[in-house]
Amino acid sequence: MSSTFPTIGILGGGQLGKMMAAEAVRMSVDARLLSPKEAGPMQPYTGARVGDWTDPDVLRPFTADCDVVTVESEWAPADAAAEVLPDGAALWPSTQTLSLIKDKGVQKQHLADAGCPVPAFACCETLDEALDAAEEFGYPVVLKQYRGAYDGYGNATAAAEDELREAWPDLATEDGAMVETFADFARELAVQVARRPGGNQVVYPVAYTEQRDHRCHAVEVPADIDDAIADKARHIAQKSVDAVEGVGLIAVELFEMPDGRVLVNELAPRPHNTGHYSIEGAATSQFENHVRAVLDWPLGDPSLRTPVAVMVNVLGRREGTPPQTTGLPRALDTEGVTPHIYGKPDVRPGRKMGHVTALGADRADTRKRAEMAASAIEL
Amino acid sequence: MSSTFPTIGILGGGQLGKMMAAEAVRMSVDARLLSPKEAGPMQPYTGARVGDWTDPDVLRPFTADCDVVTVESEWAPADAAAEVLPDGAALWPSTQTLSLIKDKGVQKQHLADAGCPVPAFACCETLDEALDAAEEFGYPVVLKQYRGAYDGYGNATAAAEDELREAWPDLATEDGAMVETFADFARELAVQVARRPGGNQVVYPVAYTEQRDHRCHAVEVPADIDDAIADKARHIAQKSVDAVEGVGLIAVELFEMPDGRVLVNELAPRPHNTGHYSIEGAATSQFENHVRAVLDWPLGDPSLRTPVAVMVNVLGRREGTPPQTTGLPRALDTEGVTPHIYGKPDVRPGRKMGHVTALGADRADTRKRAEMAASAIEL
Repeated sequence: MSSTFPTIGILGGGQLGKMMAAEAVRMSVDARLLSPKEAGPMQPYTGARVGDWTDPDVLRPFTADCDVVTVESEWAPADAAAEVLPDGAALWPSTQTLSLIKDKGVQKQHLADAGCPVPAFACCETLDEALDAAEEFGYPVVLKQYRGAYDGYGNATAAAEDELREAWPDLATEDGAMVETFADFARELAVQVARRPGGNQVVYPVAYTEQRDHRCHAVEVPADIDDAIADKARHIAQKSVDAVEGVGLIAVELFEMPDGRVLVNELAPRPHNTGHYSIEGAATSQFENHVRAVLDWPLGDPSLRTPVAVMVNVLGRREGTPPQTTGLPRALDTEGVTPHIYGKPDVRPGRKMGHVTALGADRADTRKRAEMAASAIEL
Repeated sequence: MSSTFPTIGILGGGQLGKMMAAEAVRMSVDARLLSPKEAGPMQPYTGARVGDWTDPDVLRPFTADCDVVTVESEWAPADAAAEVLPDGAALWPSTQTLSLIKDKGVQKQHLADAGCPVPAFACCETLDEALDAAEEFGYPVVLKQYRGAYDGYGNATAAAEDELREAWPDLATEDGAMVETFADFARELAVQVARRPGGNQVVYPVAYTEQRDHRCHAVEVPADIDDAIADKARHIAQKSVDAVEGVGLIAVELFEMPDGRVLVNELAPRPHNTGHYSIEGAATSQFENHVRAVLDWPLGDPSLRTPVAVMVNVLGRREGTPPQTTGLPRALDTEGVTPHIYGKPDVRPGRKMGHVTALGADRADTRKRAEMAASAIEL
């Protein structure tokens, strides 16, 4: 334990860890980050450590002075950290919450059992079971890998039996894979929920998220949807986070269906790309509320402090190292935008290199400025 | 020069350097800080260096990869840095600007010569000259040390001749001291100006600053003053910054006189306590615009994005190391406030340990919340 301000250990050193550390550092909370990668977004912080984060001999000194340990990703080795955690230190989200989330089959079953609306799904051990489930749901279906999927990797949409047969060997592991009905949604939405160990929580506004090529391209907040749908989305998000007893910031990705139903797509047990708008757009950012929640400190107001906030990702366009920064000054020439560049040492097409947030009164104008700035950066 | 993003060297490692670095790091600008003190607010950043910042053998490697070098304080050894600056690197503000500002007599004379309204003053080489000037202006007068004064240190108000005689030996240096008429102001105001090397600039709203015991206690923005006074204050601030050819963020402290005149009190060639509100309260913070200005990047919108922003300083109340942080969670329980704790290793009564900013629609309510939170922190 620190003698003055608390120490928070973050398993992960990417952009999410960097943005958590920024909020911690502002409040004089000592942030340390552990990553197996030599270089990355965490580098500007003195607390950055490089090491095999599954090794108890690395984790023991890393967690030694921590008041709380948290994760940047559901795939961080929280179980290993839990085993060497010093007396009195907490690990949030709990390993129990993480185990309910990181396997997509377990997650969906758990949410369904808790009464949270989800698309029809089946956990299938064999291809035959998958074919039967698809037959029952009707094509198209989505075949999902249980663990490790992100940004479209690990998922395949099958329009017919032969496509499902073809996708199965790539995505099925020894326990099989999940078949889910293809949600022909009206919109994809997301809601951030920050929750303290005792269950006290705050719920962010509903975000509209726009995907391109299976990656988050833009997020507009508040989503331009009926109030009743927004209320339902926030209620379902809260119920889902309660169901997994999430502590910290938990992001809930949702489908708004054409018939007005709202279904849970999936949870992320950490700050999420769909909540980056909150750094400038909300009274308290998702990263600050994550830090507050895992320290069991009072949560901050999640409401928007602007009529509209729009976030657009800056995705890599090339292969190599990020180029000279002529693009960033050009982006700064766009009114009312705040750029975040993560500091990744290598760029590849589609990689999330940064994002920009624009605030404004008019949705279309705000979106336009965010797009212009993100596109000017050209990494 | 960096092969990708620029590097900014900051002479200083206190809270101003820390808050500059935070903005740089967000944009993936490589920030390094040099301070002669072992521990301080800069410590969370990998770029922090400790060393004799007047020593060319320390400054040469520190500035070696910098695209630009800037200062956290007018007393940073910019002249020494200028001598070892690598080819193509810039130093902003220029040593010329700094030399016009850091000596209060030179500053006031320069502003007066440029037509900026200042209180009546006289640069006096001897006590006799000071007594003559005081006689001419009428008591009370303020005796000001030329260099190194801050937060009330280095100034003395003399109500009569004997008090001036008593103060002289403490404040006069070999070139004497400055006698200034006591400005019996209606309010103290401040205006931040960010200015690029070519002269392009943005001017922040007028801040009302409230001093207690010669230290900034609270800042309310916008100041509750007539529009005509606000326009005059912003115009004079801009003119003053042009007069010293300031580059970066320059803070202009002003007196609003009961007769409606606005006089320049003094300039600070750097982000300033009276501009901290801008981190949450303005579209672009004074620290971000400082970084943009010294890199000669387009400046950001300085306007408020909330009806009222109030900043209250968190001053030390005791002697020692900062206590356990029970106060910070209590402060976070106040709605709509953002705390900044600088991370100074030692606390002493009156020392600036942090600040909080509250945003809101109602001035009195916003002020109350900021005061409550600042007072709860108890360092």
